[in-house]
Amino acid sequence: MSKTQKFSIEATRESDFPKWYKETVTKSEILEYHDINGCYVLRPNGFFIWNTIKNYFTGKIDGLGVKEAYFPMLVSKAVLEKEKDHLENFAPEVAWITECGGKPLENPVAIRPTSETIMYPYFSKWIQSYRDLPLKLNQWCNVLRWETTQTMPFIRGREFLWQEGHTAHLTREEADKEVFEILGFYESVYRELLAVPVIKGMKSKKETFAGADFTTTVEVFIPHTGKGIQAATSHSLGTNFSTMFNVTVEDPKAPGCFMPVFQNSWGLSTRSIGVAILVHSDNRGLVLPPKVASTQVVIVPCGLSKNTPEEEKQKILDEASRIEKALNAQGVRAQADLALNVTPGHKFNHWEVRGVPLRIEIGPKDLANNQVCFAWRMDKTKKSVPLENIEKAVQEELDAIHETMYHNAKLLQETSMLKGSTMEDLNAALRGGKMCTMVWCGSVECEDAIKKMTEERDKNNVVAAAGAKSLCIPFSENKPSGACSVCPSEATCVGLFGRSY
Amino acid sequence: MSKTQKFSIEATRESDFPKWYKETVTKSEILEYHDINGCYVLRPNGFFIWNTIKNYFTGKIDGLGVKEAYFPMLVSKAVLEKEKDHLENFAPEVAWITECGGKPLENPVAIRPTSETIMYPYFSKWIQSYRDLPLKLNQWCNVLRWETTQTMPFIRGREFLWQEGHTAHLTREEADKEVFEILGFYESVYRELLAVPVIKGMKSKKETFAGADFTTTVEVFIPHTGKGIQAATSHSLGTNFSTMFNVTVEDPKAPGCFMPVFQNSWGLSTRSIGVAILVHSDNRGLVLPPKVASTQVVIVPCGLSKNTPEEEKQKILDEASRIEKALNAQGVRAQADLALNVTPGHKFNHWEVRGVPLRIEIGPKDLANNQVCFAWRMDKTKKSVPLENIEKAVQEELDAIHETMYHNAKLLQETSMLKGSTMEDLNAALRGGKMCTMVWCGSVECEDAIKKMTEERDKNNVVAAAGAKSLCIPFSENKPSGACSVCPSEATCVGLFGRSY
Repeated sequence: MSKTQKFSIEATRESDFPKWYKETVTKSEILEYHDINGCYVLRPNGFFIWNTIKNYFTGKIDGLGVKEAYFPMLVSKAVLEKEKDHLENFAPEVAWITECGGKPLENPVAIRPTSETIMYPYFSKWIQSYRDLPLKLNQWCNVLRWETTQTMPFIRGREFLWQEGHTAHLTREEADKEVFEILGFYESVYRELLAVPVIKGMKSKKETFAGADFTTTVEVFIPHTGKGIQAATSHSLGTNFSTMFNVTVEDPKAPGCFMPVFQNSWGLSTRSIGVAILVHSDNRGLVLPPKVASTQVVIVPCGLSKNTPEEEKQKILDEASRIEKALNAQGVRAQADLALNVTPGHKFNHWEVRGVPLRIEIGPKDLANNQVCFAWRMDKTKKSVPLENIEKAVQEELDAIHETMYHNAKLLQETSMLKGSTMEDLNAALRGGKMCTMVWCGSVECEDAIKKMTEERDKNNVVAAAGAKSLCIPFSENKPSGACSVCPSEATCVGLFGRSY
Repeated sequence: MSKTQKFSIEATRESDFPKWYKETVTKSEILEYHDINGCYVLRPNGFFIWNTIKNYFTGKIDGLGVKEAYFPMLVSKAVLEKEKDHLENFAPEVAWITECGGKPLENPVAIRPTSETIMYPYFSKWIQSYRDLPLKLNQWCNVLRWETTQTMPFIRGREFLWQEGHTAHLTREEADKEVFEILGFYESVYRELLAVPVIKGMKSKKETFAGADFTTTVEVFIPHTGKGIQAATSHSLGTNFSTMFNVTVEDPKAPGCFMPVFQNSWGLSTRSIGVAILVHSDNRGLVLPPKVASTQVVIVPCGLSKNTPEEEKQKILDEASRIEKALNAQGVRAQADLALNVTPGHKFNHWEVRGVPLRIEIGPKDLANNQVCFAWRMDKTKKSVPLENIEKAVQEELDAIHETMYHNAKLLQETSMLKGSTMEDLNAALRGGKMCTMVWCGSVECEDAIKKMTEERDKNNVVAAAGAKSLCIPFSENKPSGACSVCPSEATCVGLFGRSY
């Protein structure tokens, strides 16, 4: 194996998607696999993405008056079991500590898979009057869900990082308003930072968060696998948890009467990093959206050989350093790769695998013409650019790269969303690696039937590909008329169906 | 119980220190006790302190080229057991997950009490050549240590938040330099943010981190209890872990020879918040250093009564609002408390319990004289200040409060550090609620003997107060001559001894 091969991506998306993804996230130094299944190391290049999302989203929710807090990760059995639907959903994935320092625990404790049941006893204590409302808290933390299905870095892990917001309101109107505001922020994280287009919608009854009145979601289409993925969710919990946890206030309109408050919870996890990687990367490896790239620009001296006079060589290196400094001074994360014992080709490959959005090449001819060459990572766009005012040109180029990445993904998403009206249409869409909208009665029965009818089985009748599910009921779709695509009942919505992560 | 009592601190430091502390941290809305012992909720006022420390310290270590990462919280038994000294020390506190989703785990996994053994297998993988050095990583995370002794919010918890830095270097010199740089940053966190003076020093052999060559520390004196507390530590791990985990590089000076790298680890936890609270707070409750107070200034309209003309009342309220806005615009975290159904006295108490550093009172007479009244939380300093350019006056006042808090604490620390040369001196110091320096041979045997001889036992011969230990060997002390204060051996250092947390 040559050195280049070792550091290049060997698998292609077409030949071996899982291997391609594994190579893409590890060889880019984004992530490392841990020796415990479903756990991963987030390396600095990966953590940078998360910190960028964190800062951006924190700015957004600050504006809504959300405060940051931290709740314990441990929950006792009694408290975990308070909301039954919720428990039923999470119980199969809950990890239990039963032994400490070599001794069995009298009362084993669970590790949070999510924090509703940990936080709401305190909401009950802190909210004594409607004057204590709204209460809006958010925490950034790790959670643990003991997945028994196939794990996948960022996409389905046992431990992952997320933010979970939990709020309480006096009225349903106020609570609902927030549900959609937060969903808008999630859309912005994907649109503005990750250059990923989302489909906003409502989750079906079957896919609604356990214990919620309704769940809104942003869904993303993943190319090559043709699957949809839930990218973040914002839930209206109504009064389900507040009733169980006794989070009540005296009704300001009916003194003496106590009413449960209206609650929301909403979460975005490190899955978002995986989504961006899956949407943008290619067979040469990682492609990072500029805003979350820890290195946005790499400057590579080119066209130097053994015969290049020392003085000229030095001029090129100096100019590369000067550009690096000038860009850094403008807040652009640039790095000059000045090593002389490595060929430009090797450097190109090195930085391509790591997804650096923009490469600046500078050689003797460029310098003579007072210009450099810009090369985009995402496609192979190349152009000559004057050295004068290069800081501004780079800023504009990074913005252009971001927009192009977004629009390419948007176009692919749009052409991958077919309109159907029968199961045949849906199956045809799935076979083509696409998703399909269909008018639908919204029932769990029809959703189950669709799943069953779209399963792919191998010759031994073993499920080779899980059936399609409703990814969401897109807000962009109008209310339909006529019958459901599956049963004779009246259609109530248009569902987006597809295979999914 | 009157409303005031319920929200005021009832216990005093002198009458019931543990109760006073509990009331101080909870009634200030800094923290809430969880139903699992040793776990606590960090409420927004408390988390604000942590975020301030986080941002400040991140800025410092960024300058050293330290990158942020995140490693899994789970560790397998085999890996945890690799460094024996280290394991022995942590094993009694390690929590084990043995069951997930109702099924026993074939291979139980531990939750990190610290991450040396989780991180260093990756160091081994990533560090292939001396060109990969130095490697400098830091993570902000939760850790779990199943304390069986008395727990105490912030000071000794089972789950707590911290940062842990882990670095690898080619030479011992470079590694050691960093150990002391980091210790300086820890001193700065206490000095610049928390207004807490620290004693920098070396840990004794007995108190050195398990697996380290040496441990440097910042220690703080806690008034009223007379105890010292370890406030943050920076360890030189030498080649102990790198040998066990095979983190080696080819020696650039001896091609063909592989050498283990020199490693450091260093950590600061949410204990720092508790230290600041213990040092500064008083019998009226929390006293926050201005730089970490989520509300730095509260503005309270005063001198209004039922007889105050409506127009005049409104003028005062408007002026209070104007001051709030003007301060916020200057980056001062100010809040005007304009409620009309609450007396100024109640408001004073409300904000005092919460530790708000500066109160601005404004009444009709003040307004007539174009002035306001400043009242310090920490002592009862009061003064009239012209309204003109009040933003600047507030900034200066907050700085003055910070400096006064620091110098008061520093004075108390200095007068609480006696010089002794015999066990009688030490015991006298301890009885007086103080610490004591003594020349010392540095041996574990003498440290054990000192502990034994300073134990306090009740009439049933049960230990009522644990004996003193060496808090550190202060860097400020010169090397002594003559014999150890305990044994006939030659003294090698001056130890600072005291009871401790």
